[in-house]
Amino acid sequence: MDRKYILKIDCPDKKGLIYNISNIIYKHGLNIEKNDEYVDDENAKFFFRAILSGDLNNLQLEKDLRAVLPTDANIILKAKERKKIIILATKESHCLGDLLLKYYSGELNTSVVAVVSNYDYLEELVKKFDIPFHCVPCDNFTRSEHEQKILEVLKGYKFDYMVLAKYMRILSSDFVREYEEKIINIHHSFLPAFIGANPYKQAFVRGVKIIGATAHFVNDNLDEGPIIAQDVIRVDHEFSWRDMQKAGRNVEKVVLSNALDLVLEDRVFVYNNKTVIF
Amino acid sequence: MDRKYILKIDCPDKKGLIYNISNIIYKHGLNIEKNDEYVDDENAKFFFRAILSGDLNNLQLEKDLRAVLPTDANIILKAKERKKIIILATKESHCLGDLLLKYYSGELNTSVVAVVSNYDYLEELVKKFDIPFHCVPCDNFTRSEHEQKILEVLKGYKFDYMVLAKYMRILSSDFVREYEEKIINIHHSFLPAFIGANPYKQAFVRGVKIIGATAHFVNDNLDEGPIIAQDVIRVDHEFSWRDMQKAGRNVEKVVLSNALDLVLEDRVFVYNNKTVIF
Amino acid sequence: MDRKYILKIDCPDKKGLIYNISNIIYKHGLNIEKNDEYVDDENAKFFFRAILSGDLNNLQLEKDLRAVLPTDANIILKAKERKKIIILATKESHCLGDLLLKYYSGELNTSVVAVVSNYDYLEELVKKFDIPFHCVPCDNFTRSEHEQKILEVLKGYKFDYMVLAKYMRILSSDFVREYEEKIINIHHSFLPAFIGANPYKQAFVRGVKIIGATAHFVNDNLDEGPIIAQDVIRVDHEFSWRDMQKAGRNVEKVVLSNALDLVLEDRVFVYNNKTVIF
Amino acid sequence: MDRKYILKIDCPDKKGLIYNISNIIYKHGLNIEKNDEYVDDENAKFFFRAILSGDLNNLQLEKDLRAVLPTDANIILKAKERKKIIILATKESHCLGDLLLKYYSGELNTSVVAVVSNYDYLEELVKKFDIPFHCVPCDNFTRSEHEQKILEVLKGYKFDYMVLAKYMRILSSDFVREYEEKIINIHHSFLPAFIGANPYKQAFVRGVKIIGATAHFVNDNLDEGPIIAQDVIRVDHEFSWRDMQKAGRNVEKVVLSNALDLVLEDRVFVYNNKTVIF
Repeated sequence: MDRKYILKIDCPDKKGLIYNISNIIYKHGLNIEKNDEYVDDENAKFFFRAILSGDLNNLQLEKDLRAVLPTDANIILKAKERKKIIILATKESHCLGDLLLKYYSGELNTSVVAVVSNYDYLEELVKKFDIPFHCVPCDNFTRSEHEQKILEVLKGYKFDYMVLAKYMRILSSDFVREYEEKIINIHHSFLPAFIGANPYKQAFVRGVKIIGATAHFVNDNLDEGPIIAQDVIRVDHEFSWRDMQKAGRNVEKVVLSNALDLVLEDRVFVYNNKTVIF
Repeated sequence: MDRKYILKIDCPDKKGLIYNISNIIYKHGLNIEKNDEYVDDENAKFFFRAILSGDLNNLQLEKDLRAVLPTDANIILKAKERKKIIILATKESHCLGDLLLKYYSGELNTSVVAVVSNYDYLEELVKKFDIPFHCVPCDNFTRSEHEQKILEVLKGYKFDYMVLAKYMRILSSDFVREYEEKIINIHHSFLPAFIGANPYKQAFVRGVKIIGATAHFVNDNLDEGPIIAQDVIRVDHEFSWRDMQKAGRNVEKVVLSNALDLVLEDRVFVYNNKTVIF
Repeated sequence: MDRKYILKIDCPDKKGLIYNISNIIYKHGLNIEKNDEYVDDENAKFFFRAILSGDLNNLQLEKDLRAVLPTDANIILKAKERKKIIILATKESHCLGDLLLKYYSGELNTSVVAVVSNYDYLEELVKKFDIPFHCVPCDNFTRSEHEQKILEVLKGYKFDYMVLAKYMRILSSDFVREYEEKIINIHHSFLPAFIGANPYKQAFVRGVKIIGATAHFVNDNLDEGPIIAQDVIRVDHEFSWRDMQKAGRNVEKVVLSNALDLVLEDRVFVYNNKTVIF
Repeated sequence: MDRKYILKIDCPDKKGLIYNISNIIYKHGLNIEKNDEYVDDENAKFFFRAILSGDLNNLQLEKDLRAVLPTDANIILKAKERKKIIILATKESHCLGDLLLKYYSGELNTSVVAVVSNYDYLEELVKKFDIPFHCVPCDNFTRSEHEQKILEVLKGYKFDYMVLAKYMRILSSDFVREYEEKIINIHHSFLPAFIGANPYKQAFVRGVKIIGATAHFVNDNLDEGPIIAQDVIRVDHEFSWRDMQKAGRNVEKVVLSNALDLVLEDRVFVYNNKTVIF
């Protein structure tokens, strides 16, 4: 069976891009198994993603593509392979547990290389699944000191994405820049509503009839990174904020898991602090 | 057939309220056709709503109820009757048209006494349904002057609620206070996200994956009144803000219509800038 | 400004289709404004849709495409133009009224050439919008006789699609075959649940917690045509079947309107009694 | 702090029930913390549920209630206590795992006394959570023989409810009758659509745009027991039935968990093969 490859391109739009790209793919004797394309008219920006199969010469294909694409095109071309993630968590187990279970049952299209936490609450759970657990306490350390210790742990692993599965510490700009578009967070509100601390309490006080969760890439601005996935559920006046929190956990874990699937399948482009998802 | 009555009570909670209330209803020979009750534990606040049938002596029943309820109890007791609404709109026809159609087909549990607008765009549509239309232009007038003219028109009608069916003018505090808990607005966002002007553009720029609409009572603070109903739909990167606006119109009109049904059936209590809905 | 064209192709899948199609489009000097493609792997079936702009020579483009496509390819190539619909209805006004309002406000991407009904209930409403109304009574006629009379009316109009906006008569196979993939129906259940008469009563008796509506192309088998769009809402034990019917109307009209938008924009392919929608 | 009690009553409706019930509760010096009531008008059937607090004399309270209620009233009166469940599963881990995780984290309002399966696939997972696991193979046994062996295992435990967390065997009428209204099943379709085997394949073939899951009490008729909870998600033509199955797992586990919460809090009445849920 032929190997499969992911090709992702984004660049300024111009006439004939599809023709030129498909022409080169065709000349390389590759098959396009799936292909999505989108043009952001307002910004004249072109997005393209294909799953290719066949016998691929990476260097030559990329070189030939560059020859017909605008000079500032971004090209990602790689074998469709199982990726690796590292998970950061704090005390709550629902998102972490859901990922561990899916990993255990073979449903998660990735390997979990380790779990890092600022507390030891989740150690027992993680060890049940035979995954390395690192407790990096934050108490009595500055943010910067704590992040240094986290970074040291991270450096011991190879991973493609970092998943914040209810990691309740704000990451510094310096930390985030090290892993641009590589950190996925689950926020327990329907962003941009209820930015900041305890969104369920905020939602309760405001009296909304729907609450939600948002998975997004982490960037410099807290809770303002590009949104990957969102979902909501209905609540009513009988919900205390604790009830909202409980009901919300089911949404949080599903939204995070869905967003992770999209990212792991290389279906997500980031552009203008938004996502294009095929 | 017996006449039907709505009884709504809210007061500080204390032991025996249900017993005392139902005892008095029973002694008056009335039947409780439906009864809902909710206690906000945090604030020790009691809410009660019943539909009664039988031969009712309003004054005596209310007097007997007051005798067993805390002194600051709010009691609403009235025949279950068709109410009247007046609609304010500006240029967009979807919410107004939906209400007119439902009124025409007998589905709307209310009479529409008139439509008032700051433009004449909607006059032709309103006249198709034989409803008085008042154009009260806002151009070249101060907010206060314009509102005075609106108030003059309103004074010519008897109505229970004022429905802002995409009325795109901010109402002054003075105006709003005249009609406390009597003005229902539809806001074209999933509040509290995207408060203020052009929420669809804001949603587009933020790159959310879900948009919505919110029906709320209007109070002093723009877009911050008690929420009655909300609903959402999914969008993706292919939606321009115009596409969001188009898709959102279907949500807006359904949310407004549903909220209006709840209000017209006296199912909504307002408390702490939130709603309790039975 | 360049004119816009829709190109739809479906054919057996083979290597190089995207390249060959885009090559020809490129050679014709046309721009691909949007392009979607899907391959049904199981059946090795290829679907392609593009919006083209430029100066188009229909005959030559289609000829050139046929030369590179499998012999049994379906090609639709036409100017992106406003289409025409004819509406059939019976007594209920909500779906019809929603379409008329959208037509009136310019939101509906089509012209409504006429409304045909087996009763005269809706005549007054239709006439408000200055659209021809034809009452073709069904009482005292066989199905075949009645359909003959309907057909006579239909023959007086040019239209692209027939919309059954709660037309409560079953159409014969003969009738349906005259308008294959041209008749869009709204069914008041979440198909395939509750096929047949009075789905709201069926839903009530079964005690479901969610009800819905389904828009589909009409084929020989009642309620079994290719599904275009579906949506649902939550209900609970307090809903009588009349309450479900009332709540369901909002879903019905929105689902029908959304399905119609998809069809009118030529975004729908029918295949194996299912739809592929770009 | 006072102990809390659940009182559930259902009986033929008659005038004064609320008064009579609340009178007796009041005379017993109990407080009504929450109280819901519903009358099914069509069948003149009354449903009542209250959470009581205070110093309760069970026998006397029930006796006093019986004295004022119709003779065939069902009364359930019991301390609000943590319940026990036993879980049956087969090979799939998502529903089971979700319950185990929630049990582990203290979120599940119940104890899991054991897991029983017709295969040993899930043994490793269950043992991670230190819960007894019983493998009762079905191969080479008749349904009746197999159920006898299951029953023997069940008899070794005390439990309030049996949860079929993707238990893929049909239970006989005899078995079901032993545990009337005590067995909760999760069905992987939006019932009553796609009754029977492999609903995802059925949904795929039918081309629906929405799939779902249904939690219900198990009765004699497969997939036809009283529905407790349902939820749905959107799918499109790109979903293979395997994709639907994967996406559906998230819905299944959340619906089952939500239904279980409702049952464990004694919020569910069964009547006419439907549920009344407060």
